[in-house]
Amino acid sequence: MAGETFPNGTVNEAGHSRVVIVGAGFAGLAAARELGNTEIDVTVIDRRNHNLFQPLLYQVATAALSPADVSEPIRRTLGRYRNIKVMLAEVTGIDAAAKEVKLDYGSSVPYDRLVIATGSEYNYFGHEDWRAWAPGLKTIHEARLIRQRLLLAFEKAELSQDPEEKKALLTSVIIGGGPTGVEMAGAISELGRFMITRDFRKLEPDNMRVILIEAGPKILAAFPDNLVQYAMKVLEKEGVEVRTNLPVASVTKDEVIAGSERIRTGCIIWGAGVKASPAARWLGIEGKAGGRIPVEPDLSVTGLPDIFAIGDTALGLEDGKPLPALAQVAKQQGEYVGKALRLRLLEDKPSGPFRFHNRGNTAVIGRNTAIFDFGRWTLKGRFAWFLWALVHVYLLVNFEKRLLVSIQWIWRYLTRQRGARLIDENAASFVPSSTQRTET
Amino acid sequence: MAGETFPNGTVNEAGHSRVVIVGAGFAGLAAARELGNTEIDVTVIDRRNHNLFQPLLYQVATAALSPADVSEPIRRTLGRYRNIKVMLAEVTGIDAAAKEVKLDYGSSVPYDRLVIATGSEYNYFGHEDWRAWAPGLKTIHEARLIRQRLLLAFEKAELSQDPEEKKALLTSVIIGGGPTGVEMAGAISELGRFMITRDFRKLEPDNMRVILIEAGPKILAAFPDNLVQYAMKVLEKEGVEVRTNLPVASVTKDEVIAGSERIRTGCIIWGAGVKASPAARWLGIEGKAGGRIPVEPDLSVTGLPDIFAIGDTALGLEDGKPLPALAQVAKQQGEYVGKALRLRLLEDKPSGPFRFHNRGNTAVIGRNTAIFDFGRWTLKGRFAWFLWALVHVYLLVNFEKRLLVSIQWIWRYLTRQRGARLIDENAASFVPSSTQRTET
Repeated sequence: MAGETFPNGTVNEAGHSRVVIVGAGFAGLAAARELGNTEIDVTVIDRRNHNLFQPLLYQVATAALSPADVSEPIRRTLGRYRNIKVMLAEVTGIDAAAKEVKLDYGSSVPYDRLVIATGSEYNYFGHEDWRAWAPGLKTIHEARLIRQRLLLAFEKAELSQDPEEKKALLTSVIIGGGPTGVEMAGAISELGRFMITRDFRKLEPDNMRVILIEAGPKILAAFPDNLVQYAMKVLEKEGVEVRTNLPVASVTKDEVIAGSERIRTGCIIWGAGVKASPAARWLGIEGKAGGRIPVEPDLSVTGLPDIFAIGDTALGLEDGKPLPALAQVAKQQGEYVGKALRLRLLEDKPSGPFRFHNRGNTAVIGRNTAIFDFGRWTLKGRFAWFLWALVHVYLLVNFEKRLLVSIQWIWRYLTRQRGARLIDENAASFVPSSTQRTET
Repeated sequence: MAGETFPNGTVNEAGHSRVVIVGAGFAGLAAARELGNTEIDVTVIDRRNHNLFQPLLYQVATAALSPADVSEPIRRTLGRYRNIKVMLAEVTGIDAAAKEVKLDYGSSVPYDRLVIATGSEYNYFGHEDWRAWAPGLKTIHEARLIRQRLLLAFEKAELSQDPEEKKALLTSVIIGGGPTGVEMAGAISELGRFMITRDFRKLEPDNMRVILIEAGPKILAAFPDNLVQYAMKVLEKEGVEVRTNLPVASVTKDEVIAGSERIRTGCIIWGAGVKASPAARWLGIEGKAGGRIPVEPDLSVTGLPDIFAIGDTALGLEDGKPLPALAQVAKQQGEYVGKALRLRLLEDKPSGPFRFHNRGNTAVIGRNTAIFDFGRWTLKGRFAWFLWALVHVYLLVNFEKRLLVSIQWIWRYLTRQRGARLIDENAASFVPSSTQRTET
């Protein structure tokens, strides 16, 4: 397999333009779909075989859903488009002069237009050693790792005879007060209290602590103040201790030091900011604002008009302000670039600049509560949660998964039971995967 | 936690008898349930937090179901019985004189009566080095490993430019023609052909091979000849090559040598016979017929009337013949021992000998076909498959899982799609777990 090369050129044998899309997350998939069943030769490259519905990944980490419920083989998603090829491979570099993408197994893929949609990864701000003890929530592997640690801590607490150790094992620390951190904190609190009451014999609900640490002055910084206040109140009621203005100084296997506090813990989760994938490096350009690739209004990379960057890895500006790293931005940018390429390559027409349409920003807070920020108006509480659930089920890729997730949610709503409380068998060897690789 | 000891004695503080059950598979769980909500102090010890519905594990390995669909936290299953404690721990030995079970973290648990239900593991007949390349199908970890290898082989085949390598990667070898081997062969053939036709661009269905190797003269040796003949015909139609009388001489990463044949392959699966868990060693007695513990008609260990052995790890005789290592035997033995202990400990009454009631032996052959052997009569074909599906959904532990599995089966029946085609992210580090530990 190694050493193979694909015929060079910007069009294939049939004279069709070649578009290569790197990364099959929200952005990459949206672009690919727009190019489906056209006379463009599309190749989608990802180093995983599945795309991941990241907004629900925290539910895998907290044993509510199975990994397969929130992910789908990329081949299955794109299988119906006969002009799209999928390659499971890792990109190691881009030769913009030769118009080739270099792959890990020694071959390269030529392109006429290239779309970079390689996403973001968690930023440990120079403390790479923290990654092993405080996994983020970007991949199935990490979600499973967190689930494992969380459940294992409770099991160890049940066996422990040392009250201090018991308390430490029942303490979870979430670092970073963004939507993922808040969702994790609420879900862990709910799961823990349910398990202690129902399934454990030697644990007290009062000994359980969930601590959400935020370095900045407020959690959910992207949301308006009234929603933040509301979220704080709900979290407190759910038993989550929220600590703002508290930068973390040290993370080890079972301890977090933040400010003057030393917190012994059984499970640490990282959600404190992201940085872009290393795609800027492939292009030999300097990333900005966390390694993101600066793009023009048409989302082409500044100075490289045949290369587009979309999603979390791109730094798009709108009215002079950078667009947030959100799934809806990624999806809209993917759709935009797909349509623009169709126009350009098939009809030789230009397209206007990309405009982001804000569909509303949302986060789940604790059990059956959510917040929505639609810009001009906001929504909170149980109805917001119901809307959140509807929207997310709708956004899942296919009908089967919609049905499966709906049933599990209804079941959980009625019983509080969580179906996926699995500790994988080889706990010892279950170390975090290298997260050098990123995922959109 | 280490070094802790539980107060010794055969009754607890309240004067209740202590029963310890090691292993929470079909046998151990059935015994525990019978003792639920009685005045007996029950402790269930398992080194996994979940029990596994093994008859459907092959569907996890072939991407049809998720791990959580076929497993359930032991705590959840037994949570409603307030007299039952669950411990996630590994048993390292038994002190029959002191009446104590020794655990891996240095403590021990005293018992009045002990039930050993530690199951079986795959037997590599002295070739332990084969285990790494030919995983069996006993744990979630192994099922996920097989799924990963299978899907990865197809992905690599799609990328390969070498026709011989392509063919090798599309060849799966299953060693052992028992029900698990037959079920895996049929499921792999179905999955592979579907994926090639629908989702891959550079693979030919004709290049795919599924080879089922059996050392003995026939597959499904436990079934009557007419069903075996039928199964052979169905497998052939499904594209499975069945080779009997073919002992395997060597297994390496990508090659199986059997007889004079050298088969290059992308995925090897082991299903060629089991041996009992090492529980006989704990008791210092010699296991028979693959390490199984000889038991009396009341399932107590010969010479140790306070210790019972049930399920795959026990060698029970009926009419002078050893009982087969089947889930239904394990379940019935568990129920029997649970009831017998209740009678003895609470009412001081003896119980008669254990009698196995054969509920019928079944195996799935290819797509939507099954065989049943009820002793006096047999059943085969699509109706048998429908009955198989009904029975297995019914046997699943709880209503939520029944519903989830049913929906996925109906979906698959209608679309042939498989929902759980996940390749886990860190493929390289995904090595087989140590399978010294067994599971009932």
